[in-house]
Amino acid sequence: MSEARGPDPTRRSERSRTAILSAAIELVTESGYAKTSIEAIAARAGVGKQTIYRWWPSKAAVVFDAVLDLTKGQQGFSVLETGDLKEDLKQVLRATAEELTNPRMDVSFRALALEIQYDANLASHWREKMLGPALDATKDRLRSAQHSGEIDADLDLDVAVELLYGPLYHRWLLQTAPVSVEHADAVVDLAMRAMSR
Amino acid sequence: MSEARGPDPTRRSERSRTAILSAAIELVTESGYAKTSIEAIAARAGVGKQTIYRWWPSKAAVVFDAVLDLTKGQQGFSVLETGDLKEDLKQVLRATAEELTNPRMDVSFRALALEIQYDANLASHWREKMLGPALDATKDRLRSAQHSGEIDADLDLDVAVELLYGPLYHRWLLQTAPVSVEHADAVVDLAMRAMSR
Repeated sequence: MSEARGPDPTRRSERSRTAILSAAIELVTESGYAKTSIEAIAARAGVGKQTIYRWWPSKAAVVFDAVLDLTKGQQGFSVLETGDLKEDLKQVLRATAEELTNPRMDVSFRALALEIQYDANLASHWREKMLGPALDATKDRLRSAQHSGEIDADLDLDVAVELLYGPLYHRWLLQTAPVSVEHADAVVDLAMRAMSR
Repeated sequence: MSEARGPDPTRRSERSRTAILSAAIELVTESGYAKTSIEAIAARAGVGKQTIYRWWPSKAAVVFDAVLDLTKGQQGFSVLETGDLKEDLKQVLRATAEELTNPRMDVSFRALALEIQYDANLASHWREKMLGPALDATKDRLRSAQHSGEIDADLDLDVAVELLYGPLYHRWLLQTAPVSVEHADAVVDLAMRAMSR
């Protein structure tokens, strides 16, 4: 009986989804965002164009989900809480620096950072799913450090998290200097002086 | 005799240059960067297309100079040295926030921030002429505060300036929250705590 059954449709969907997202990242990395088409992604993934359009409204949306998948795998948007705030922040900022310099991420992530300038809908997705969770998790970690008395209770956490992430994205987007884990550490060391009581 | 003389060619060049740069900013602001052409800039400025090509190699180069002109007028890339470091930094960071939120600047400046991702030559011009002078002037001001003992002499100034500018550009480019002079002040207040001895 079991041999007569067709493949599990949920499994097949998941396989197609993974193939599409991998193809999107590969093509953007190889040829750039502008030259990557939905047709090419479909061909590389071995699915029909309509399969992509059934799940995603645009090329930007496919690349967005592809990057989101890569990001989640690496970081999971949670910040460790070992009791040593400085080390916990270094861990998360180093992971960000590694993401930004990962060749598999760089071109696609950068392309999206540009697309949001012209696409308000994508910009709000970006805030909600891409940057928001990382900023929120970091604020949660800082809030807990406020409760334990490790950092100043009056600190404006919205400004404090930008002191951590701002310098990394500044380098990366404006290409003023290379992003590195050493730089991430230096930023945390300095920002900790601002936050400490 | 003087009535028989033609117009001063240097003056005429300067008038054309100003007209071209104004037309470039106006068109990019009205229609977006992608839809602005050299032809349209020439027509709006009342010059021939060849006049533009004689002075600039590309649309990006024209818009770059147009933005540079606007930036210089507002800020001049110098940081006040009144003896009160915190106020001097607030003054320069507020000016940056005002530039980034100036509707006449926003679209063109943002378009260039995107173009540099794909154009290594423009990226190096950007570093050298647009961001570099502001970062360097700010570092000079911090160096002088190190000498006067106002801030820590061991501070890595490359990291310190990013603690100031990074949060503003992070908000502006990644659209996580509005840029404002109040935000600029909050960033300086917090960064000063990191830098002070």
